[in-house]
Amino acid sequence: MNLFYAKPEHIHRPLLQLEGGEADHALKVLRYRKGDEIHVTDGEGIHYTAQITETGKGHLIAEITEERSAAEHKPKVIILIGLIRKRDRLEYAVEKCVELGADRILLFRGDHSEKQNVRMDRIEATVLSAMKQSLRLTLPDCQLYQNLSDALKASGKGKLIMADETADDQQQKITESPSNEAFRLIVGPEGGFSRQERDLLDQAGAAAYSLGLNRLRTETAAAVMVDRFTRTQR
Amino acid sequence: MNLFYAKPEHIHRPLLQLEGGEADHALKVLRYRKGDEIHVTDGEGIHYTAQITETGKGHLIAEITEERSAAEHKPKVIILIGLIRKRDRLEYAVEKCVELGADRILLFRGDHSEKQNVRMDRIEATVLSAMKQSLRLTLPDCQLYQNLSDALKASGKGKLIMADETADDQQQKITESPSNEAFRLIVGPEGGFSRQERDLLDQAGAAAYSLGLNRLRTETAAAVMVDRFTRTQR
Repeated sequence: MNLFYAKPEHIHRPLLQLEGGEADHALKVLRYRKGDEIHVTDGEGIHYTAQITETGKGHLIAEITEERSAAEHKPKVIILIGLIRKRDRLEYAVEKCVELGADRILLFRGDHSEKQNVRMDRIEATVLSAMKQSLRLTLPDCQLYQNLSDALKASGKGKLIMADETADDQQQKITESPSNEAFRLIVGPEGGFSRQERDLLDQAGAAAYSLGLNRLRTETAAAVMVDRFTRTQR
Repeated sequence: MNLFYAKPEHIHRPLLQLEGGEADHALKVLRYRKGDEIHVTDGEGIHYTAQITETGKGHLIAEITEERSAAEHKPKVIILIGLIRKRDRLEYAVEKCVELGADRILLFRGDHSEKQNVRMDRIEATVLSAMKQSLRLTLPDCQLYQNLSDALKASGKGKLIMADETADDQQQKITESPSNEAFRLIVGPEGGFSRQERDLLDQAGAAAYSLGLNRLRTETAAAVMVDRFTRTQR
């Protein structure tokens, strides 16, 4: 099944509209035609089945025949990821977090991040593509922050849990106490956290969480954290 | 910490030897010198601390000062992965399986695999690099098989568990019944399994296992499967 994305403002019941790249992909690559059935999400939890009624250059209009809502998982899973040097690994981290169900992704420039610039347009395209690929109905928000402190402030409320190689494995029980509070997961860049960042995390009450015996790359740690914390709650 | 690899036949207590790329990496890239301490694994579960006594073109000799064994996790986790089209995603799948603790990786040409050829030298380099990066002390074996049937035969004994989108979430309890039998995990290629492959898996008694609500890419499913099944056992 192919899932398309239409912004909420392009849903005008009983019609919906695909624009730009989404319309082109449907018409030029997948060769959808008038009368065909398509599946569309608004990225806010709704899945529309619709029948194409009109096509044109860069746009497609379809009539909604069915709509259903996704069951949301609670608590929310928010992940903060320190920038990593290699672009493909950063994009991979974001892609996996979306596939595995993260609700929000906050990238931050860590004190030990070697990379300082990120093409957020590419990251946004990765998020959108991963949402569609994984048939998720919610589009996670993904933003870049100047530093850990800003990302922490922007992350809102909820239990703070930090991936930490040195943590005791017994901490695993954190995932086993479901509540409706969000989980805010934190994964540092390759170089780990600076002393200042550690102090900041301590002050914020972050709990250290072990991911196992092996030293994991940032993108691996991010994927596994999201999987573990979304999974226990579904 | 940097971890190096020496084949077991290059360990001659009290000396050990690094060869080729390993020696070059130590000497040319990381600029280790005579007298420096290095960390080496034989890929069979032993970690050596050693002091460099001799260096030369493409080789390095060191005297072992300490040796310790890794705690092995039981049961073993073996993963069978259908070939996926994109090389980077296949290498990523292998890398993540190694990082997360898979004991053996069996790649197979699925009936729906678009890709038929794999540069196994690159895959082996990925395995070695991921072992060192993650500070694992065991080098997982990774081989390519002509088809699922051959891979199944080569995988030996143990509980067969197949990632399956359509499986009931309740199957999750599979991970909660530890025994000393190996887990043989199976992840299909992008196109899924053919009817014949499904029959083969049924006959072999493979249990269907759900990875959650979202449709996961092969490399994501592989990583998450390995994490879940190694984790419960450590």
